Amino acid sequence: MYRSHTNGELRLVNVDQEITLSGWVQRVRDKGFMIWVDLRDRNGITQLIFDEERSSKTLMEQAKTLGREFVIQIKGNVIERTSKNPNIPTGEIEILVSELIILNKSITPPFTIEDETDGGDELRMKYRYLDIRRNPVRENLIFRSKVTMAVRNYLSKEGFIDVETPYLIKSTPEGARDFVVPSRMNEGQFYALPQSPQTFKQLLMVGGMDKYFQIVKCFRDEDLRADRQPEFTQIDCEMAFVEQEDILNAFEGLTRHLLKEIKGVEIGKFPRMTYDEAMKTYGNDKPDIRFDMKFGELNDLAQNKGFGVFDSQELVVGIAVPGCANYSRKQTDKLIEFVKKPQVGAKGLIWAKYNEDGTFKSSVDKFFSQQDLAAWAERLNAKKGDLMLIMAGESDKTRTQLSVLRMEMAETLGLRKPNEFAPLWVIDFPLLEWDEETGRYHAMHHPFTSPKPEDISLLDSDPGKVRANAYDMVLNGNEIGGGSIRIFDKKMQSRMFDLLGFTKEDAQNQFGFLMNAFEYGAPPHGGIAFGLDRLVAIMGGQETIRDFIAFPKNNSGRDVMIDAPSNIDKVQLEELNLKLDLKDLK
Amino acid sequence: MYRSHTNGELRLVNVDQEITLSGWVQRVRDKGFMIWVDLRDRNGITQLIFDEERSSKTLMEQAKTLGREFVIQIKGNVIERTSKNPNIPTGEIEILVSELIILNKSITPPFTIEDETDGGDELRMKYRYLDIRRNPVRENLIFRSKVTMAVRNYLSKEGFIDVETPYLIKSTPEGARDFVVPSRMNEGQFYALPQSPQTFKQLLMVGGMDKYFQIVKCFRDEDLRADRQPEFTQIDCEMAFVEQEDILNAFEGLTRHLLKEIKGVEIGKFPRMTYDEAMKTYGNDKPDIRFDMKFGELNDLAQNKGFGVFDSQELVVGIAVPGCANYSRKQTDKLIEFVKKPQVGAKGLIWAKYNEDGTFKSSVDKFFSQQDLAAWAERLNAKKGDLMLIMAGESDKTRTQLSVLRMEMAETLGLRKPNEFAPLWVIDFPLLEWDEETGRYHAMHHPFTSPKPEDISLLDSDPGKVRANAYDMVLNGNEIGGGSIRIFDKKMQSRMFDLLGFTKEDAQNQFGFLMNAFEYGAPPHGGIAFGLDRLVAIMGGQETIRDFIAFPKNNSGRDVMIDAPSNIDKVQLEELNLKLDLKDLK
Repeated sequence: MYRSHTNGELRLVNVDQEITLSGWVQRVRDKGFMIWVDLRDRNGITQLIFDEERSSKTLMEQAKTLGREFVIQIKGNVIERTSKNPNIPTGEIEILVSELIILNKSITPPFTIEDETDGGDELRMKYRYLDIRRNPVRENLIFRSKVTMAVRNYLSKEGFIDVETPYLIKSTPEGARDFVVPSRMNEGQFYALPQSPQTFKQLLMVGGMDKYFQIVKCFRDEDLRADRQPEFTQIDCEMAFVEQEDILNAFEGLTRHLLKEIKGVEIGKFPRMTYDEAMKTYGNDKPDIRFDMKFGELNDLAQNKGFGVFDSQELVVGIAVPGCANYSRKQTDKLIEFVKKPQVGAKGLIWAKYNEDGTFKSSVDKFFSQQDLAAWAERLNAKKGDLMLIMAGESDKTRTQLSVLRMEMAETLGLRKPNEFAPLWVIDFPLLEWDEETGRYHAMHHPFTSPKPEDISLLDSDPGKVRANAYDMVLNGNEIGGGSIRIFDKKMQSRMFDLLGFTKEDAQNQFGFLMNAFEYGAPPHGGIAFGLDRLVAIMGGQETIRDFIAFPKNNSGRDVMIDAPSNIDKVQLEELNLKLDLKDLK
Repeated sequence: MYRSHTNGELRLVNVDQEITLSGWVQRVRDKGFMIWVDLRDRNGITQLIFDEERSSKTLMEQAKTLGREFVIQIKGNVIERTSKNPNIPTGEIEILVSELIILNKSITPPFTIEDETDGGDELRMKYRYLDIRRNPVRENLIFRSKVTMAVRNYLSKEGFIDVETPYLIKSTPEGARDFVVPSRMNEGQFYALPQSPQTFKQLLMVGGMDKYFQIVKCFRDEDLRADRQPEFTQIDCEMAFVEQEDILNAFEGLTRHLLKEIKGVEIGKFPRMTYDEAMKTYGNDKPDIRFDMKFGELNDLAQNKGFGVFDSQELVVGIAVPGCANYSRKQTDKLIEFVKKPQVGAKGLIWAKYNEDGTFKSSVDKFFSQQDLAAWAERLNAKKGDLMLIMAGESDKTRTQLSVLRMEMAETLGLRKPNEFAPLWVIDFPLLEWDEETGRYHAMHHPFTSPKPEDISLLDSDPGKVRANAYDMVLNGNEIGGGSIRIFDKKMQSRMFDLLGFTKEDAQNQFGFLMNAFEYGAPPHGGIAFGLDRLVAIMGGQETIRDFIAFPKNNSGRDVMIDAPSNIDKVQLEELNLKLDLKDLK
């Protein structure tokens, strides 16, 4: 037995007990006649003491050989500390060591195993097993485990059945790129790894499972943007005999439960906002509503006053940034620079200060009177001391740009408080979006999403106007979940594939099994999928999902620790009936 | 809202309530003036009634259009049945329907949706979504969900952290064949799908996670034997600072808990048996100990009595089959035929009956006296009325053959009772096994398994004799879990790779990350993995894992429902820098 206790549990009541501990050497303080060692494990730190007067000479000498991250086992006696440490739970006691076994030595780690480490990102990833020893990383992983258990217990209690769907499925060229898996037994054929278990969970509904959930890995072979992973985890859910309202209530319930159970935060009914409203008010379909700065449209107030920049544009729109009327010229110039950056792409920015004394000062005083600016202030809900920021241009583009500026200002002002939680539903998404590149409609959610019954008549005449029974759950400016009521009628599903430019043959070939299933009594159904990595990160008060994944990949999709992907054997390739066709070598 | 209640919950107390139900039409009984419909969902069946006297003409006509598996919604009034059905929980009431909506029609299903269906295996797999509507299949999936929740809750309570390990990892040619995944972003390189998260869970121990578990999909590209799946699910566990005894206790605890919680069966301390003992006593490292028929070796009693078949062989070994002394010549001949089948491969079988009157009758009476046979009976622990079956030949082979016969007899006699549970540990497995084909040692468990400290001296002199700290949990004749104490020392790990015929370069290339990790203070650790599919099947009283998997693959690794694997686009192949190299087309 390597230990009688962990390093987090000994207290004053244990004094005089003979105990056995194991763990890592966090720190050695060697005063010559006395040596203290901080012994660490997942549960905490316990102080060991070796003392010239009370320990044997051999033991003292042995203790002096200890280095950082050595793994040791000790036997000893729990004693009361003379100078107690109130900062750790075991701070009232220490262990007078009587026996020391070095279980494993350690060479010097490439970075310090401390809450704040000196290791850069790349080094930490290469030695992720050492990084995980650090409290913040380990705590994140434990936090994730706690969240998933809470999800499972809640959904189980609500009658959801955890069903595993297959990982080796069929490739469908629609949507994002699949990772494929060559089949050795079926020559020349490939499986695909699921981008989501979408069709399987729908088939489970056809199969009468009624309520399904699964916490499941999904895969997308995309060019990785920052903070995307080729493999990611979904909380995948589906319910039969439901309307949108049932789903919203069920999963609002889940999220409310999680925030309460894990974060101790009580949230009432979630606000709901249509997609159109979100775009108009926040320029964004995943608005962060922890803070205000709602968009105000100024066309009627700001156009035709002789300021050509505004007059010629489709939309003039602004926000009131709280308490920034005192911004210096340098500061406002910096904001103008910010919006002109290629990532934002605006042509410029107009500012107007609502001074504490009730007067206004703007970058366009030449064109607008104090009264004009007062009208702007009213529209933007600006208060004395606020800074109004106004942009103009083509509507969609300008809203997006102002949204970026809004988030930037919130960041700057510390309004994105990590321990404040503001969830909302965004509903009534468009069914389709026009893709300029391919010159056809794409499904905004996915091809299985049901149009709103009242909009079905528009499917032929004006497909872009059709709204879907689709919804996103947004938390603190991030989409943490999205779903829809599904089509459950073969004809409608077939019509949808037509609209999306599938030939009848392709549709049958790729999704024939689903359309066939709809002929055998498919119930109305719908569902949602949460991005677990992001949900956990946001609940943990952070936004980087990598910090909540045990072994993440880098932006080239590589695991730098195990060095994957890698070359494979010629024999393996031959067995799979494949040849490399390397362009770089030609 | 599609329903106010499920089809499993209405009782007499609900009489007179106006309710809404949805579900599938299980059965229609049309008496002309009265129509009964059994409405089904996951939760049960509720009887609907349409009655000429109480229902409108339109409603009666509408009800007459209903067919099997139609999906309907009804509103109606709960009334007390005149003739109650005590066999179903809702049998005291029925619903007098006032409104009927057909949500979706159904064409005639290809097989009946009943507990006993007329559908063959292949048809059921093609229409798995209909198969899942059948009670036994659905109940199996719900049972699986219940078992996994119980596993998770137990392990969480015991301090295990659920950590997700990656699915896109590195291919290692050792062991079974990997499924590989071409990387588009890393030209010419491949990921592999994990055969198990073995190295990652060990790295989590190096990382101080202390106790890890995960219920995780694993992948093996093997030629599929009956009841093997290319993707399967493991309960994967690892603990740090443990010896074998700690692991056995921890996971005996889990299994005991499951049997109690799920099956209501109380099991005491699990018996333990060494590998050698299991092979000697049952000819098998996963003995079914629900019944006896232990092997008895008869060399000293049966050789040198003039029977050449015995005299020339290495081992003479037998079992006593309870109550079969009355077998006819035809029956014993059938047993002889059975052991001669190529799958068993024996040359023959000797039988000896221990008659109820205390006399013996055998197929070798010419060579053996009544006294001789009485001595056999004593050795085999045979009682009056038992049939002794004896085989002879090369030791290992003969034991295996007798083991097959033992299981066959148990099956015939109904001794493999599905609701009796007899777990045991098999311990002290050999570290290595000699592979005739490749002419070298293979790791019996895997290359990370620790040799027993007391056997390390044999590593050079007699590697085949070295025992490992490896253990299997066996339940009812099936290995449901296996694991080992791991090597945590770089030198020992390196030596193991040498023994297994790795070059230094290959070892470094494939497992360098693990050996490096061992240099930074790796703790002693060990673990176990349970095959969830099999565990659930056996706990469910069955042995076919396919019945407990929602969407299984067939013996060619195909999903016949979605028709995967399949051909992929040329563009996809090009993006992956691959070309097909089809042998069949050459």
